[in-house]
Amino acid sequence: MSFLPHLQQIVSQVEGALACSVMGLDGIAVETHEVPAAAELDLTAAWIELLAPVKQLKDAAELLKTGSVQEVCVSSEKVITLMRMVSPEYFLVLALKPEGNYGRGRYALRVTAPKVKAEL
Amino acid sequence: MSFLPHLQQIVSQVEGALACSVMGLDGIAVETHEVPAAAELDLTAAWIELLAPVKQLKDAAELLKTGSVQEVCVSSEKVITLMRMVSPEYFLVLALKPEGNYGRGRYALRVTAPKVKAEL
Repeated sequence: MSFLPHLQQIVSQVEGALACSVMGLDGIAVETHEVPAAAELDLTAAWIELLAPVKQLKDAAELLKTGSVQEVCVSSEKVITLMRMVSPEYFLVLALKPEGNYGRGRYALRVTAPKVKAEL
Repeated sequence: MSFLPHLQQIVSQVEGALACSVMGLDGIAVETHEVPAAAELDLTAAWIELLAPVKQLKDAAELLKTGSVQEVCVSSEKVITLMRMVSPEYFLVLALKPEGNYGRGRYALRVTAPKVKAEL
């Protein structure tokens, strides 16, 4: 039940990573690891704001022929936010600098999600 | 004011591309180009469903320290949907097969957005 090593590994492996968290769809972060540079962006507030639309996306997609949502990525001016579902109730979220390695971030979340799921 | 050549170029350049459209945030597609294989996924319905949460994401992000939203990507079981803002009211949307070239799709939208904006 310790997610921190997974989160630290993701942040250390992805260039430009600012913070990584296991969050519930209720907006409560189970565990978070962030680098000092992340503090000024107030990512926790950002993630909670992103949650309602992401839940809506998830619910909308489940009614559609396109199937259930596995990943949502939002690029904004100062941060890239990558989210990957771990279970119906929990997801991994990774914040990157705009110049961070987007592809590597997606890959790290994809391979880590089953490991986190196994410990939920 | 003809967007079709841009949309055709994107679809032809990105492996796994199913459809590409210039859409307003009001849900009205200005112009769409799709390959025949896209028909069964009912992408127009999917895009309209995705619109409300994407607008919410955009509004939420603008209040945050992370800055305005430039791109939203949603990966679901049967389709990857990449959206890139062109102007405050219009965006480009590209649907790919799950095994399609995500990175190339993002790149194609990024370079095409200013060309579409110039014609709006």
